[in-house]
Amino acid sequence: MTVTLKDVATLAGVSVKTVSNVVNGYAFVKPENRRRVEEALAATGYRPNVGARNLRRGRTGFLALMVPELSIPYFGELAGLVITAAQKRGWSVLIEQTQGTRSRERETLFSLGPHLVDGALVHPEALEAADFPSPGEIPLVMLGEHAVDVPIDHVAIDNVLAAQTAVSHLASLGRTRIAAIGRNPARGTSSQRLAGYRSGLSAAGLSYSDELVAPAEKWHRSVGAAAMRSLLALPSPPDAVFCFNDLLAIGALRAVAELGLRVPEDVAIVGFDNNEESAFSLPSLTTIAPDKMALAEAAIDLVHRRITGEKTLPAQDIQTPFALEIRESTRG
Amino acid sequence: MTVTLKDVATLAGVSVKTVSNVVNGYAFVKPENRRRVEEALAATGYRPNVGARNLRRGRTGFLALMVPELSIPYFGELAGLVITAAQKRGWSVLIEQTQGTRSRERETLFSLGPHLVDGALVHPEALEAADFPSPGEIPLVMLGEHAVDVPIDHVAIDNVLAAQTAVSHLASLGRTRIAAIGRNPARGTSSQRLAGYRSGLSAAGLSYSDELVAPAEKWHRSVGAAAMRSLLALPSPPDAVFCFNDLLAIGALRAVAELGLRVPEDVAIVGFDNNEESAFSLPSLTTIAPDKMALAEAAIDLVHRRITGEKTLPAQDIQTPFALEIRESTRG
Repeated sequence: MTVTLKDVATLAGVSVKTVSNVVNGYAFVKPENRRRVEEALAATGYRPNVGARNLRRGRTGFLALMVPELSIPYFGELAGLVITAAQKRGWSVLIEQTQGTRSRERETLFSLGPHLVDGALVHPEALEAADFPSPGEIPLVMLGEHAVDVPIDHVAIDNVLAAQTAVSHLASLGRTRIAAIGRNPARGTSSQRLAGYRSGLSAAGLSYSDELVAPAEKWHRSVGAAAMRSLLALPSPPDAVFCFNDLLAIGALRAVAELGLRVPEDVAIVGFDNNEESAFSLPSLTTIAPDKMALAEAAIDLVHRRITGEKTLPAQDIQTPFALEIRESTRG
Repeated sequence: MTVTLKDVATLAGVSVKTVSNVVNGYAFVKPENRRRVEEALAATGYRPNVGARNLRRGRTGFLALMVPELSIPYFGELAGLVITAAQKRGWSVLIEQTQGTRSRERETLFSLGPHLVDGALVHPEALEAADFPSPGEIPLVMLGEHAVDVPIDHVAIDNVLAAQTAVSHLASLGRTRIAAIGRNPARGTSSQRLAGYRSGLSAAGLSYSDELVAPAEKWHRSVGAAAMRSLLALPSPPDAVFCFNDLLAIGALRAVAELGLRVPEDVAIVGFDNNEESAFSLPSLTTIAPDKMALAEAAIDLVHRRITGEKTLPAQDIQTPFALEIRESTRG
């Protein structure tokens, strides 16, 4: 026997409209009524037919989120915020992982269409402009700092400025041999952070030296540790390092300690992302803290605007805020 | 103009079957043919109609994964592995976050049905048996150690034994005041780890003391730090701590260092989960390392078996392996 909204309303002693509001996840329901409806829903075993509801609306009810790897804390944290923001608008989120390679990113973009999702949030690392589908298929929002010159919505922090801020902070402490870890020409994010590193050096009157810029294909902790060991083996080692993400920085912290050197006395370290772990490392990590919640909400908001009619609005380029979070790895 | 598989095959100079194999993600395609097909797919702009394909198969093409919080590294890592394992079987994964509360877990379970997903992997923290839907709606696999006595498939490590192993390791180092951090009666995982803690003490001939068991509502780093400070303020503080997850342990490490004490000389610490960060903390963290990939693959395999016909098989209870990963926080 199929349970109807009316059955639930009768049992709960509220209107059908109230039951409908609870089932549809709207916020404006009195807590007491919500509780009674939820109990009645559980008692009757009512199940909304989400598929039918979305069909009526001409929606799938899904958004896609494309990220390199969920096991990278930045993406785990960001995905959690995106899911929460999407849920408020009635969307469930499909997550696709690309490992940051162009071929996987292209495949994923290519697989997304209006039959599958209502829109997609993509965090590319290697895509080029030619890889993007023609506009209009589904609303697409690009997240993060990878620079692709395509007319689609984009939400990110000012990444060059953020990197420059990190380097200026190190220079302000009197450090003169400031290294960088994270160079990878295949990743757009890396190019932007490198540009900010160079302009930070310039602004401080320090010269750029290739030997102080360590490559990192993957931005993982073990890679940061290996890069730091190489830098410390230079005839004239650095007295400070700007790492292009927190994982590289955590690896660098570990490598400095293993060599019996001190952070920040011998080497000051700044990361990027403000992963939760960075407030608890020993020493805690100074880092660029993007406002991840603002980023997630701006992106969901853009998809929602596109779907609800603003299809002809020119592509938006939204900058969300960041801050320099100063902790023990530079302050001591 | 609609591009067909035949158009792609002609351009690539391969058979329609080969194009179909690439589009469907099958593994047995020669690399050279795969490359040619992918180029032809990109050039023609061909898009498979995944929705229609799944309709033919009587599938939605989606699995749901329900976890407390993606920003907790264990769940970020696990979700990444589940997505990878699901993709090999042609599924995309929807992720739902519950914060580990019974009401959100119940709502999520309740919202899942055959109109939405082909199956679901759920990692409950607070659900009770009465919350589970009647079997047969969609294949459901329970992940993790929360003990709910319902006849559905379950994949987990032997959690009591794992906790006991951690405590026995601390006892084997000669520690006699072994504390625990993570008690939370509302979470099944906590009850199991507490049981293992008690049996580990017993096995070592140590007596149980309530004052050495610190509660933790959320298993976050800040909570672990606060709990450690309370334990160290006892008239007779512990010389070792078993933390119910790595985040609590990382917080505990930090609290010990802030008080000027040493790990492991003054306090030895063991965590649980083997988050990637635990190999890089200072000191690195001894921890219980569940085989997360085995867990993800076993769960996806079970859903697949249920969908492809083994509907009448009794509920499976699969134990995946774990290991004690001994690092500096106990070894020095």
